[in-house]
Amino acid sequence: MRHDAQRERLSMIDIDEWTITQAVLKAQAGTQDARLRRVLDSLVRHLHDFAREVELTEAEWAQGIDFLTRVGHVTDDRRQEFILLSDVLGLSTLVTAQNNRRPAGCTEATVFGPFYVADAPVVRNGDDIANGAHGQPCFVSGTVRGIGGEPVAGATIDVWQSDEDGTYDVQRPGLDHAEGRARLASEPDGRYRFRSILAVPYPIPHDGPVGRLLERTGRHPWRPAHLHFMIQAPGYETLVTHVFRSGGEYLDSDAVFGVRSSLVADWKPHGPGTAPDGTRMDTPFHTLDYDFVLNPAAPAPQAP
Amino acid sequence: MRHDAQRERLSMIDIDEWTITQAVLKAQAGTQDARLRRVLDSLVRHLHDFAREVELTEAEWAQGIDFLTRVGHVTDDRRQEFILLSDVLGLSTLVTAQNNRRPAGCTEATVFGPFYVADAPVVRNGDDIANGAHGQPCFVSGTVRGIGGEPVAGATIDVWQSDEDGTYDVQRPGLDHAEGRARLASEPDGRYRFRSILAVPYPIPHDGPVGRLLERTGRHPWRPAHLHFMIQAPGYETLVTHVFRSGGEYLDSDAVFGVRSSLVADWKPHGPGTAPDGTRMDTPFHTLDYDFVLNPAAPAPQAP
Repeated sequence: MRHDAQRERLSMIDIDEWTITQAVLKAQAGTQDARLRRVLDSLVRHLHDFAREVELTEAEWAQGIDFLTRVGHVTDDRRQEFILLSDVLGLSTLVTAQNNRRPAGCTEATVFGPFYVADAPVVRNGDDIANGAHGQPCFVSGTVRGIGGEPVAGATIDVWQSDEDGTYDVQRPGLDHAEGRARLASEPDGRYRFRSILAVPYPIPHDGPVGRLLERTGRHPWRPAHLHFMIQAPGYETLVTHVFRSGGEYLDSDAVFGVRSSLVADWKPHGPGTAPDGTRMDTPFHTLDYDFVLNPAAPAPQAP
Repeated sequence: MRHDAQRERLSMIDIDEWTITQAVLKAQAGTQDARLRRVLDSLVRHLHDFAREVELTEAEWAQGIDFLTRVGHVTDDRRQEFILLSDVLGLSTLVTAQNNRRPAGCTEATVFGPFYVADAPVVRNGDDIANGAHGQPCFVSGTVRGIGGEPVAGATIDVWQSDEDGTYDVQRPGLDHAEGRARLASEPDGRYRFRSILAVPYPIPHDGPVGRLLERTGRHPWRPAHLHFMIQAPGYETLVTHVFRSGGEYLDSDAVFGVRSSLVADWKPHGPGTAPDGTRMDTPFHTLDYDFVLNPAAPAPQAP
């Protein structure tokens, strides 16, 4: 007994770069939540393997701490630099992909991004969601269906986008209302429609630590033009995705790896004339018609 | 050519959870700094392997973003929660160990910790560095030598410690001066000495996200009693280490995996009487005598 107790004691002191991994796993072996334990055990093993593989120096470790500190300090209610970091490191795309394996025919998912806001204003079909944001007018419409072709009525559709300068409402200092951001519901036949502005390519926020990382790795911060959608309906899996503009720049080098060819659509240019909603337009405008196909949710567990 | 260009283009779209890793490595292939590229390539591979191995869900990813955001927001000039996180995950010990492989006979290094302050007040040998911090008096002395036994004169010695309540000066709200923290220089014979207070076990700050992590993983936040030292001298490797109190609690379960048996020393208790510096003490006090042995720095590269 005494020998065992001593060995037990010794195992947590005189730890070196090889024994540390087992020491941490042992320390967290009392984690009650089995899933949390699995995730943390894997995280610790991979974090340690990384540090050993590159023989991380103390100066590099300090630079890493400083980098994360700056990411934390630039993050606030309106800016989420950790999501941006996850996006540019490809983690967001990886997690989105492995959690959204859907049958062929369903609309593909892509990254969530850092600019979603939970309490977007609710609008009616046909409303102008630009709400003051600058840009060429764009009329967007389409249908929400299930994989069987059935229209999905009353689907909650969140849409958000940048203005013609490439900034989202939450990025504009002093702005206290939503612009280019709204929530609407599909009609009984599954149709939705709204007026907004034309999406354009824009750089992700690159005046912070993530921008500096891109610069040092020879990467540009641009994303191709897109609209963000999140569509939720009872009985269906939630869909978080974008619709991209065909023919636009950066489709082949999206800074956050979000482009899926099935999500690239034709946005049709029109000269001055009559818009789809009957409005007389004195300026050029675009139209986009895009249909979403939702995957049924897994059936809820039956009561025994 | 056209075919190659198209294939090139396609490789950066329609990325899935398996191709994302190569896509990110390709994106950062233009990194000029070869070392930075090696570190980031390894980081991306291990980060992705982790997320795939545990099949990280979108909800777990969001929890991770939220956790890091909270770590960032609790971190300020006086509190470094990212270092604390690195400490409890064993990364600090790993990096310290693999960067401080020294010949037998040299004093071992251990973790830096989050409480070092760069501009500690300079004191003379024999001064009282407690400077108002509460605790039982403790007289500390010893010699700084090289591995060959030679005394090291004029070594810069930073020392920092908690008070009897287990808090460092930087943790005490409103305190605008150093307590239990100082910088001194070894004398011509390598000797150093100062008066301070007795180190006691204390919990690392556990009212933030790292504390919650420890709680959820069944871990306590305590560290065994110790003094922090950083010793710098021209011609020698910088030594960052602790001296621990033998016989104290938590030596076998340090929350940050920092204990090395060679760093555990006897701190001798004394009743009221004459202190080593001749002071007449009316109360009990402790003494610690601890010698440090420095490793010569690698020779500077010769000019060709």
